[in-house]
Parts: sequence; structure tokens; C-alpha cells
Amino acid sequence: MSEHEHWVERYQAVRGLTESLCLPLEPEDFVIQVCEDVSPPKWHLAHTSWFFETFLLIPEIAGYRPYHPLYSHLFNSYYEQVGSHIVRTDRGHLSRPTLKEIYAYRRHVDMHMVQWIQSENLEAKAHLRSILELGLHHEQQHQELLLMDIKMNFYLNPLKPSYSTPNSPQPQVRISPHWKRIQGGLVSIGHDSESFAFDNETPRHHAWLNDYELASLPVTNEEFLEFMEAGGYERSEYWLSDGWETVQKQGWNAPLYWDKIEGEWWVFTLSGYQKLNPDEPVCHVSFYEADAFSRWAGARLPTEEEWEHAFRTEWPSFGHFLESGTFHPRPASPSQPVAPSQSTGELLQGFGDVWEWTSSPYAPYPGYKPAHGALGEYNGKFMSNQMVLRGGCCVTPKDHIRATYRNFYRPEKRWPFTGFRLARDIKEDRV
Amino acid sequence: MSEHEHWVERYQAVRGLTESLCLPLEPEDFVIQVCEDVSPPKWHLAHTSWFFETFLLIPEIAGYRPYHPLYSHLFNSYYEQVGSHIVRTDRGHLSRPTLKEIYAYRRHVDMHMVQWIQSENLEAKAHLRSILELGLHHEQQHQELLLMDIKMNFYLNPLKPSYSTPNSPQPQVRISPHWKRIQGGLVSIGHDSESFAFDNETPRHHAWLNDYELASLPVTNEEFLEFMEAGGYERSEYWLSDGWETVQKQGWNAPLYWDKIEGEWWVFTLSGYQKLNPDEPVCHVSFYEADAFSRWAGARLPTEEEWEHAFRTEWPSFGHFLESGTFHPRPASPSQPVAPSQSTGELLQGFGDVWEWTSSPYAPYPGYKPAHGALGEYNGKFMSNQMVLRGGCCVTPKDHIRATYRNFYRPEKRWPFTGFRLARDIKEDRV
Amino acid sequence: MSEHEHWVERYQAVRGLTESLCLPLEPEDFVIQVCEDVSPPKWHLAHTSWFFETFLLIPEIAGYRPYHPLYSHLFNSYYEQVGSHIVRTDRGHLSRPTLKEIYAYRRHVDMHMVQWIQSENLEAKAHLRSILELGLHHEQQHQELLLMDIKMNFYLNPLKPSYSTPNSPQPQVRISPHWKRIQGGLVSIGHDSESFAFDNETPRHHAWLNDYELASLPVTNEEFLEFMEAGGYERSEYWLSDGWETVQKQGWNAPLYWDKIEGEWWVFTLSGYQKLNPDEPVCHVSFYEADAFSRWAGARLPTEEEWEHAFRTEWPSFGHFLESGTFHPRPASPSQPVAPSQSTGELLQGFGDVWEWTSSPYAPYPGYKPAHGALGEYNGKFMSNQMVLRGGCCVTPKDHIRATYRNFYRPEKRWPFTGFRLARDIKEDRV
Amino acid sequence: MSEHEHWVERYQAVRGLTESLCLPLEPEDFVIQVCEDVSPPKWHLAHTSWFFETFLLIPEIAGYRPYHPLYSHLFNSYYEQVGSHIVRTDRGHLSRPTLKEIYAYRRHVDMHMVQWIQSENLEAKAHLRSILELGLHHEQQHQELLLMDIKMNFYLNPLKPSYSTPNSPQPQVRISPHWKRIQGGLVSIGHDSESFAFDNETPRHHAWLNDYELASLPVTNEEFLEFMEAGGYERSEYWLSDGWETVQKQGWNAPLYWDKIEGEWWVFTLSGYQKLNPDEPVCHVSFYEADAFSRWAGARLPTEEEWEHAFRTEWPSFGHFLESGTFHPRPASPSQPVAPSQSTGELLQGFGDVWEWTSSPYAPYPGYKPAHGALGEYNGKFMSNQMVLRGGCCVTPKDHIRATYRNFYRPEKRWPFTGFRLARDIKEDRV
Repeated sequence: MSEHEHWVERYQAVRGLTESLCLPLEPEDFVIQVCEDVSPPKWHLAHTSWFFETFLLIPEIAGYRPYHPLYSHLFNSYYEQVGSHIVRTDRGHLSRPTLKEIYAYRRHVDMHMVQWIQSENLEAKAHLRSILELGLHHEQQHQELLLMDIKMNFYLNPLKPSYSTPNSPQPQVRISPHWKRIQGGLVSIGHDSESFAFDNETPRHHAWLNDYELASLPVTNEEFLEFMEAGGYERSEYWLSDGWETVQKQGWNAPLYWDKIEGEWWVFTLSGYQKLNPDEPVCHVSFYEADAFSRWAGARLPTEEEWEHAFRTEWPSFGHFLESGTFHPRPASPSQPVAPSQSTGELLQGFGDVWEWTSSPYAPYPGYKPAHGALGEYNGKFMSNQMVLRGGCCVTPKDHIRATYRNFYRPEKRWPFTGFRLARDIKEDRV
Repeated sequence: MSEHEHWVERYQAVRGLTESLCLPLEPEDFVIQVCEDVSPPKWHLAHTSWFFETFLLIPEIAGYRPYHPLYSHLFNSYYEQVGSHIVRTDRGHLSRPTLKEIYAYRRHVDMHMVQWIQSENLEAKAHLRSILELGLHHEQQHQELLLMDIKMNFYLNPLKPSYSTPNSPQPQVRISPHWKRIQGGLVSIGHDSESFAFDNETPRHHAWLNDYELASLPVTNEEFLEFMEAGGYERSEYWLSDGWETVQKQGWNAPLYWDKIEGEWWVFTLSGYQKLNPDEPVCHVSFYEADAFSRWAGARLPTEEEWEHAFRTEWPSFGHFLESGTFHPRPASPSQPVAPSQSTGELLQGFGDVWEWTSSPYAPYPGYKPAHGALGEYNGKFMSNQMVLRGGCCVTPKDHIRATYRNFYRPEKRWPFTGFRLARDIKEDRV
Repeated sequence: MSEHEHWVERYQAVRGLTESLCLPLEPEDFVIQVCEDVSPPKWHLAHTSWFFETFLLIPEIAGYRPYHPLYSHLFNSYYEQVGSHIVRTDRGHLSRPTLKEIYAYRRHVDMHMVQWIQSENLEAKAHLRSILELGLHHEQQHQELLLMDIKMNFYLNPLKPSYSTPNSPQPQVRISPHWKRIQGGLVSIGHDSESFAFDNETPRHHAWLNDYELASLPVTNEEFLEFMEAGGYERSEYWLSDGWETVQKQGWNAPLYWDKIEGEWWVFTLSGYQKLNPDEPVCHVSFYEADAFSRWAGARLPTEEEWEHAFRTEWPSFGHFLESGTFHPRPASPSQPVAPSQSTGELLQGFGDVWEWTSSPYAPYPGYKPAHGALGEYNGKFMSNQMVLRGGCCVTPKDHIRATYRNFYRPEKRWPFTGFRLARDIKEDRV
Repeated sequence: MSEHEHWVERYQAVRGLTESLCLPLEPEDFVIQVCEDVSPPKWHLAHTSWFFETFLLIPEIAGYRPYHPLYSHLFNSYYEQVGSHIVRTDRGHLSRPTLKEIYAYRRHVDMHMVQWIQSENLEAKAHLRSILELGLHHEQQHQELLLMDIKMNFYLNPLKPSYSTPNSPQPQVRISPHWKRIQGGLVSIGHDSESFAFDNETPRHHAWLNDYELASLPVTNEEFLEFMEAGGYERSEYWLSDGWETVQKQGWNAPLYWDKIEGEWWVFTLSGYQKLNPDEPVCHVSFYEADAFSRWAGARLPTEEEWEHAFRTEWPSFGHFLESGTFHPRPASPSQPVAPSQSTGELLQGFGDVWEWTSSPYAPYPGYKPAHGALGEYNGKFMSNQMVLRGGCCVTPKDHIRATYRNFYRPEKRWPFTGFRLARDIKEDRV
């Protein structure tokens, strides 16, 4: 397969997947935005197309004119350097362009993109290839957002619609968590290869780590229930000050999507309500809840460096991702293949299932340089007041993730598929 | 035509008109709610059906079960006595039920309503007939709201879609306003006949009026422009304190839907932007603006009693209403037929074109009794912090209005089709 | 006593009373503002002086220069036509000028005012005399506000300080309320004499009243408790829509200043907590609560015209006012003198004790003309979204009130000393 | 001097300094709180006393009873584990206890503290000694806050009062900034000695640093003006996303306390307005402004580790601190003594003058353990959404600071005396 064919195929695969994810939706579902965090599905479809149009078609194709003079204003998310944009909370106020018009926009962009890929020498022009790849990874991020947002849009509807049909439950062997000791020292952190990575994963650099221990599994629903039953949400001493304030203000007493119905906990999923499965990783908790649980458990969250160092040699592709079609984290399974270098199979579910909160504020790596121009706004300008998450989740596309990948959210956010894994310091007397 | 036939026909006409008003909309247009004031068209379609279901089908048809157990929660507007309802601002957050499902709901309600009308002895049961009539007038109010809301939904979209095609302008003879003197004394106010009226128009009662003068026409765009050019929006001395605060906070400097584009005033209409027509009645002004203009003009707004007394003998049906299909107020026309009793034709446009703000706070008439039960919430509970408007407008159905009709809005609202007419006291030296 | 002496004496009496009301305060008490409604005592002291300076000294004394160039900005309340003013909520943010400096300002204004009164021919210049009188009545209004505000400032302090010492309770004869029938017809409303009145009480005009009944006493704490125990605060059907929303938002379940302590109701007063006295008029209720109670009781509030017509011939001075020094409403007393024309003594407590909410929105009387210039802002610009109250209260100076006096507050306010009296229509079958 | 004498003397010195800082205030100045950030001086006086009472007198003195049962509720700042506290924004709503009462409270606490110090074996009980020291350092922090808050309280008063008299300007030799290269590697960070430090400075741990360069001086007003004149506040590309949003919302266009008066920049200080001195370090800028300036300048902020490593061997006591009595940063001076180890004198003003923002989010050091019990809330619970600052400022007490000291504020705060110093990476081609 030629380079051209390769990129055309990949382009079409990614773009196509976005549209297949929309197949279960009714036309009305594409329009709404139930809170500031989410965007209408229609908007995701258009914004991802705008991205290719703005950063490739307009600059690279001579004579290409924007499909519609106002679409940049409507579908630019936050790139200040390429012009104005509607305020975020207005995304759900736009009935026009209609879904049909947006699909026509996608077709238009796709046609020109494919022509451009076929005519451009991408092998020689690494810069253009990297923008193309960025556009595809960007669209993959929006595939995940699409499902996160649909889940929220449906949850806040009293009719509680389902997006997909529930999977039949699998017989399970319960796996107990244990601590794995990991050796620290002067380690290397960050991306350093030819393959694609976001600018925020670079440059590769040194960091010093003390030896530490990591839990073999993410915290489960059962463990989180124990925290709740121990009064976790009522006892300020476990919480950061900002977290405690959030608990009070929002009236949190359980993870997002948990509802107590007739005395039992149910969890709203993209396939509707399911009875709480104690063995699943806890999901849809904020950093504050992860941090409070850790303190209650006498442990702590790992730093992002500790996480990366531990999972560097794992095989991401064995994880449970979007492609499985369950759209929900599943319990750890003993049959999960592990990387050869981790032949003891000690660390499970590092990739997929749930994003794992780390204790690291999202900040630039030493020597970090954002991309030039507006694309430099992709990651760099968000480096304040956010926390790093690692590992991807059950609605992340499989080939989107890697050990150096840095996701980030504000610490109070709960609508991503977020969980966490415990870490702790080595104590001499523990050995 | 039998009584049954009459009511079936009327029911179907009103219900059918609502749906024809929706024909120009795209599916997405039915979903959105751009601000708290408006509701999604989908919601209007369902709510008006819920009204018939709740106040007739459920209480009157033995064994009738609600179409859907949650629809009352979704489509109850504000009737506390018939159960819970979603918060107003969430109406645009619901993609489900879909438009198709809502039309199925309408069909279901319509089928049962027609059957019920045909089987019920409405002549004998005045109470049921009055609820049926109330339901139809209620739906007519929502026809007007539908157009008000679509206009706002479209206006806030940067693409500025059109709902209808513009009318070709008519050659006009400009009519100048003059003052008409009206004799006061002990007059009778309020509805007092067999025909339908809302409870808030009753009982008929005495009121004392001094003699007064009323302008022959509503204030026009040209006159309002003079006020603006005289610094009307910048001079606190013309404004009520609450009005002045609103001007500052909202940054008002012109009526709603007026935009200055390249040095000229354009007005957004349901047929898109039109150049400001100086002869049209000014529209989409708040009570505060009407009141400030009046003070600037050395006049005042009429009380609702003055308005009703003056227009009691006019013929509403000559006005310019929804049925004309222009959805926009038009200039006064000399060819407008007038009632025989007003053979001088002095007072024009009292009915239709624009609702006219009065200086009267919306309060109960002496001896007012609201309807029993939840229907008593229809009008009575809104009798605070609102002002009375009279006469109907260009998107009011013609047979919905009468001289005693009391519309009401909070004084800062501008999205109804609101204008005003001046009044003044008689001065001895003026005679 | 000469005209000059009369006015000097009256000026000094009013100004002196303001300062005596401040004697129980600590220096710190003068500075604070616990919510938007109230103002710091310091501010009242300065603002009332600014009023005389602005509307008399500056325009009338040649060469008089404002005491301080910024005081107008600091102490102008809301007169847009005399320049800028700090935002209302900032009044409690100003430690300077200090109390000492403000008293020096008062002395300066007083000295010039007395000189001016002595040198001006007030008999000949009715306009100036009426501004002087306005200034004195203005200061009396602030005497009442001062006590209202101190009460709120103290109530929100967990230490619950007292302003005055409690009165020893008097042995009481309980008086039962009854209905008094009053004849309506074409009556005259509004002020029409040489004596002082605010512009909003004029002009005297006709109004038509049906016959009606008025309760002989304001509603008492005992009666209000019955409403509460009947679930009054939980049943939407008694409430105006705006009122019900306020109840929900504010979490109201009793009048302001009522606290249930160890199972018993206590009422916070300017003399600290007192056990709820069932015979006192209920106080510190909003219009919404008064209106809801009335509906629950199968009655209604009187209109302001009904109130004025009934109390026109009463003697205000027999009421229980500021001068009694109790700063709290007291139960009706059989020994209360009544006016000769009301020899049956049927209507008690019309004046003093508690302001009585009426059902009348505050609107201009027919033919109303506000004063010229900035003083026209005194009353006229507040004629929207407020309700009329009548009769004065236990912290109103005795010579400040009259039967035509129109007080006004927004319907949700509870920090004035507000109560209410029931009215009802005449039913034929009741006779 | 005995251990007892030493601690009594130190206690009295610190407590006395707080009170001397209050000497220039009028009684009214002690009461107000102009925004959520600041607290009334009265509150600082009481809160610092409450700290000693709560953490030493009550637990350590048998039979000691709290001075007042409600003072803990009023003067607890944020320690959830020792009971309730009034909401922060209500601190300025309390006229009582009066200043006099609060001074009596201080005297009471002081008497018992001195008795306790004299009777307690502090040498043997390291834990108690460290709480005593913590209480003194806590009070020193409030000395700085007191001045920060007075400055804000005075600035927002249109009368712009002065706290102190201005210093006469000194003839200056202007010093130009240059870059100093600093060698990185595996360095040690954090406190590790017997002397007092807050828990957040521990434990001492390794960190890897690349070689880097640090500016010899903090950024000056002149340099910051250049940024402003280059459109710094209008160009989104220099700003973090949260910073840019803050600039828009707050309308920032200069540092806090800068006002352009008749075309010239003036700076409000504790001695009133002063003409902008170009050579002073820029002060009262947020982290966002510091970060944006750095990006504009092609540099960056140092990490807290870089800062500490560079200033580890400097002598803090040579800095310009509270004791100088100028309450304002001063320009760099060539006569400033430098530490022997820094014989080239290259890094100036690291200590005193202005707190320096670093690029480091405030997070726990590896192995960090907060103190036990409520005192663990002192620092640990604030480790989210804040940034680290280093070095102290012109209103910090001299013996309060050290190289390992970690101050922290939210990135948008500007009312502390905050400036910054540039850093940059080593580029090969620069050598």
C-alpha cells in the first residue's frame, strides 16, 4: 500500500467511525447541549471538519474557499488566532445549519481532503503529515467526547433513553488487587520517537522518582462503596479544600451516574440503567473524589511520572477500548493478555476501561515548546488548573492511546470516563 | 351544523393551524430554546395536547390512561396542582420525545378529543364546553408564542434564517396621528356576556375615568427614532428606576430586532432583515421603553380602563392579524374599515399589528374569582409584577381577541410583538 | 413663635432625633451593611445631610460650596440628575469618612441650614418651604430605615446584640377581630389640603368602590401561626406564582425574625429575642405572604383606596409609633382612643404598629405630576414592581404619617415592619 | 536568656508588632471587608488570638474555658475539624464584637499564653514548641495579610486614604538586568534542618534540573510597560486560556493599583498615589500576567525547584522587608549586600520586595505528610488550583522567610505583593 493509499484509508476509517457512532441517534439528539461541558453531536461533526478545512485545505489548496463564510465562527472551538467563535454555551442554541447541511459539509471537506492527500507528497513534507495526523487524532478525541456527551444528554432526560443495547454479562473470576513495588531512580519521561504524539508529551526528559508501590488494579465500585459507607462524602478531613467546597455546593454523595433506586445502587450507562457491578472499576469520579478516597485508604494517587514509568513497557492494545462496543468499563479479567516484559501480569487495566487521575497538575515539561501558530493553542494554553489523566478508557479508540499520552481535565469534572489507581510510598518497615 | 359538528370543526381548525404554522420548520428547529423566555416548538406542540389530555380526557373519559406516564412531567408548564414539571430552562435540553413521537401524541389526543366531543352533551354541560373553549384559546395563545419564539430562535443564530418569504411592499398613503378626545365618567369595564372570555376579564365593574385624549395611531418607528436621536436611551430623567437599570444592564439602545448595519437601521422579521419602515408601528419595545418615550413626548400611556373604554365599540376583526400571513405589523392604512359607531374613523390599529402596553399593573378586578382547581392557575397567580397589554397583534389569531382581553407581560419583556399608543390628560387651556 | 422660630425648632427636633436614635450604637455598628437592602447608620447620617446641602444650601446660598467634593458621590442615594453615586452594595465598604467626620459634616450643614432658615422668607416662598419640609420628612423616613437596618444588621450577627432594653409586658385584654362593613360608591382619594404631602399622594381624584368589609384588627401572630400549621408555606395554591418561587428560593417557612428554638417560636426584636406573643400583629411578612394568608383565609387584601376611604376620618396620632420607644408592634388594646367619627371604635391599629400591605400596585394617580427636576425622582420613578402600604408602624415618627400616605416596597421585602389587614367583598347571602 | 524568656520575648514581639501595624487605623477601618479576598483588620486581630487559644490554651491548660462560646464560630478561618465557622464573605458584616472587645480578647489570650510558656517545659516538648512557633509564624502571615487587606480596603474608597506617609525618594543608580547561568543536575529541594518550617516544605527530596538561566532582577515596571505598549493585554497568543478569560471578564489592562490619571500612570500605595517608578519591580500582577509577559519576552517563569536551587545560598535577611517601614517594593540597589557564596552578586532581590511567581502548581512534595489533626489543614488541603511563589516581599516580616518557603495563591490573585523573575532554557547556540 502506498503512502497515499495508507493515509486515504486511515482518513476514511477515522471519519467513517465518527459517523457510525452517530447511527443510533435520532435527528433531535444531534441538536442539544444539556450543560456547558458537553457539545451537540451536530457540533462535533462540524467542528472536526472545520479543523481539516482550517489547518489544511485553506492554507494548502490554492484557491480553496471556505465552504461557508460563517462556519468558522460557528465551529471554531477555541482557537483565538484563527478568528472569533460563538460562546461555548450557545452551541445548543443553533438549529441551523441542519444535520443534513452538516453532512454535506463533511462530504465537501472529505472530497477535498482525499484529493489533497492523493496529490500531496506527504512523505517529504513531515510538517503537513503531522497536521494530517493531528487532525485524525483530534477527530478521535471527539469520538470519545461524542459518547461522553451523548451519555450526559441522555442521562438528564427524564425518559432516560438508551444509546446501545446492553451486553449480556460474562461469568467472572474475581481478581483481588495487590501492591506492586516499582523501582524509581533517574527515569526518562515523555515521548521520543518518530511516531505521532501531541506536543505536550515532549520533550523527553529526566525525572527523579523514589521507589514506590502501585495497586495492581484501579479502585473498584465495591471499594468505592466502602468509602461511601464509611462517610467519605461527609468527612472533610479526607478532602482538599476546593474538593470539599465542591461536594457541598453540588451535593455530591456518589459518583456521577449512580442513582439509588428503591434502596439499591444503579448505574446509568449508554445502554441504560444497570445494577451496580462491584467488580467494575469505579468510573465518573472527579479528581477530588479520587484524591479523597486515596487519603481515606491511607494511600495516594500516583504522579504522572510514576504512572508512565510503570506502564511504559505495557501493551496498550490489549486494553478494553471503544472498539469493543460496550461503552462501559468492565471488571479486571485474568485472561487479559499482558506484555512479555510484565510476564508476572501484575499491573492490569492500565490502558482502557477508565482514565486514571494522577496527582500531577497539568504543566509544561521542561523545555516544552508548543507548536507554531494557532495549532500551538491545541494543548499549551490549558496548562493551568487542570490535572493529568493517563491510560485511555472504554470509549477511547484503541490506536489513539500510548503510555506517554497526557489527558487533562479540571479536577471537578466527572463526565469523562474517569477512575483511578492507588499508589503509596515505600516504608522501610513494610519490606 | 350541529353543536357537535361545530365543536369538532373548530377543534380541528385550531389544532390544524398550529401544525400548519410548523410547516416551514426543519426538524432541528423544533428542539431549541435560545433563552428562558422561549420554548422549543416541539414543546408547544406537546404542551397544548397535554392541556386537553389533562383537563378533559383524563377527568372526563372513564378508563382513559395518560398517553405516557412522564409526559405530564415534561409538558406541564406551571400548574402546580396537577403535579411536578421540569424547570423551564430545561425545555431545550430534551431531544426525546422526538418530533415524530410528539406528533403521534397529538394524533392520539385528537382522536380521543373528537370522539369525546361527539359523544358529550356540550350544550347541557356549560362547564365542559368552557374548558374545551379554554383549551382552544390556550392553543391560540401558543400559536402566537410559537411565532414569537421562532423569531427569537432564528434571530440569535448567526445564519439569521427566515421563516417565511417577505411580502412585496404596498404603496402607502402616510397617515398623520392626531389626538382624539374621549369622555370619561363612571364607565363599565370587563367582560359581561355569554361568549368566551378568560376569568381575568371578569367581573364587569365600575370605574371612574376623567376625560382624556388618545392618539389616533400607535407610535411609529419614525417617532421612536426621534426619541432615540434625542438621546432617549441615555437620559435617565425619562425612565422609571427599574427601566433605567435594565437599560444599563442590557445595554439597550434600540428596540429588540433593530440592527444598525453599515449606518442604516434594519429590522429582523420572520422573513429576514428588512429596512426600517418609518411608518410601521414601533414593535418589540418593553413597557419601560414605552413609558420613557411617553414621558419624553410629554404624554403618558393610557390605563387599561381608558383603552377598553375607547375601543369597546370597535370591530376587532378588521385588524391585521395572524391570518394575513405577513407576521409583521404594517403601517396604518386609510382604507382600513372602521366600526359604524366610530364613523369618523379616528382611532386606528387598536386591534392587531402590535399589542399596546398600558400603564396598568396586572391586578385582579374588584370581585375577581379565579376558576376552581388547577385551571385557576391559568391567569390569577400571575397578578404581580406584570403590566397589561391590549388589542392583539399581527401574530394573534383573529378570533382570539376582543376589547376586554387582558394580555400581560413583565415590564422588561420585548420578544412579544409589543408597541404602544399615547394618551394625555385634558388641560383646560388646551380646549 | 415666629415662622422662623417654628422652622428652626422643627429642623433641630428632627435632626436631633436622628442622632438620639444613634446613641445606643457602638462606633463599629455605624459602618456595616449586611445585605443590599440596608445601609450603614453612618450613611444615613450623611445622606440626610447631603439632601439639605444639595437641594437647599447649594442652590439657595450664594457662594456656598459643597463641604467635600466627593461627598455627593458617596452620599447621593439615587438622584441621577444630580450626578454619580457609588453602587448601593458598596455603602458598607467605606470606612472613611469616619463617624466623627460625618458628625462634623452634619454640624456644618446644620449651622448653614439654621442661618438660612433664619434669613429666608419662608412664608412668602412656598416652594422653598416645601423643600425644607420635604427634607425633614425625608429625614424622618431615614429614622425609620435606621431602625429597620440596625435590626437586620444585629439579627445577622451570631452574637444577636440588642439595641434597646425590653419593655416589661403589660397585662392585656384580648380583643377579637370582627368584620366591619364599609359603604363604597364614588369616593375621593388622595391628598388635598395645604399641609405637607408627598407628590405621589396627589392629585385628589375620584374612584369607585363597591361596598366592602374590613377586619377590625390586623392579622395577629396567632392567626398567622394557624396558617403555618395548616401548611401554608407548603401549598402552592395559596400563592402568587412569583411568591411561590420566592418561598422556594429563599426557603421561607415563617416571617422574618421568627426562630424556632428548642421547639418554641421566638421573635428577634430590637430588644433581643422575645417569646412569640400571639396577640401582636404579625410583622415582617412580605406582600406574598400577606396575599397567600388572605387567600387561605377566604379573604383578600384591601386596595389602597379601600384602606384610605376607611381610615380617612381616623386620628393617626393615637397610634403606636416611634415615640413610644418600644420599637415593636403591640397587641390591640381596648383602651386605645378612637376618633369621634368612629365612635364605635371598630377599626383599630390602622395607624402605627405595622405597615399594612394593600393589594394595590404602586402606580401614579390620575393626573399625577412629579416635582420638577431631580426632586421628581423622589417618588415617581419607583412606580413599577412595588406594592402600596398604608398607616405607618411602630418605628415611624408620629407626625410623619397621614391617611393619604403611600409607602411602597417590592412585594418580597420583609425587613420593614410590615403586616396586613384582611378585607372581603360583600356577599348577598352573608347579610 | 532562658528558653522561657526567649519564647516569652518572641511571643510578645510578634503579638506587639501586629498591634503596632494597626496604630494608623481609625476605628471604622477595622470593620470593613471590600471583597471576598480580604478580611477586616478586626478579624485578623481576633483570628490570630483564636489560633493560640484553640491549638494551645484549650488542649494544654487544664480547666481553660474558651473566652467566649461563639468566638470559635466567628474567628475560625477554615479548620473544619475544630467546628463551624461563618462564611468568609460575612466577616465584614459583624460590628460586634467591637474592637475594644477584641483587644480584651487578645489581652486575655496573651496573659494565659505567657503564663503557659513560663510554666511549660518547651525544651522537652518539641511538639508543643513547634505549635507555638507555628502560631507565631501564623501571626506573621497575618501581619502581611493585614497590610495587603488595608491597601485594598483603602484603594476601593473614593477618598483614597493613606495608611502611612510617603518616603522621600532616594537617588538611584539604575541597574540593568542580565542572565545568570545556573547548573542543574540532581539537586536537593525542601527544608531539612532543626529550624522551623511549614510542613509543605518537607520532606527534602531529589529533583532533576536541566541547566538554566535566571534573570538577575525581577521584571521592572518599565519592562512591564513595554509589554503593555506592545498590546500585551490585547493579544491572546501570550496567554493561558484561563488567563485570557480572566483578562476579558475583569477588563484588566494594567497591574492592580495602576491608574492612568491625566495621561500618566500612577500607582496606589499604602502611602497614597505615587508616580510610576520605572525601576521598581512590577508588583500586584497575577500569575497569568507574569506568565503572559514571560511568553511575550521569549522566556518563561522558573519552576519552584529552579528558584530554590538558585537562592539556596543567598542571605534572606539582606532583603527589603516589612521592618523597613516603606510597605512598597523598591528598585534594585547596587549597594545591596550579597552572600559570600554569590560573590559576583549576580542575583538581586530574591528575598523581599515582591513575591515571585513560579511556574509550579502547588502540590505535595514526594513523601509529604501533613501535620496530624486540624493543624494538618494549615497547608495540605490547599494543594490544588494554586501556584507557588517564593522569596517574600516588602510587607513580609524579615525573620519569617527562608529559601525553602512556599507561598501559594490562586493564579488570578493580584492583591498580594506579587512580581516575578524570568528564566530560560539553555540553548546550545547561545553559548
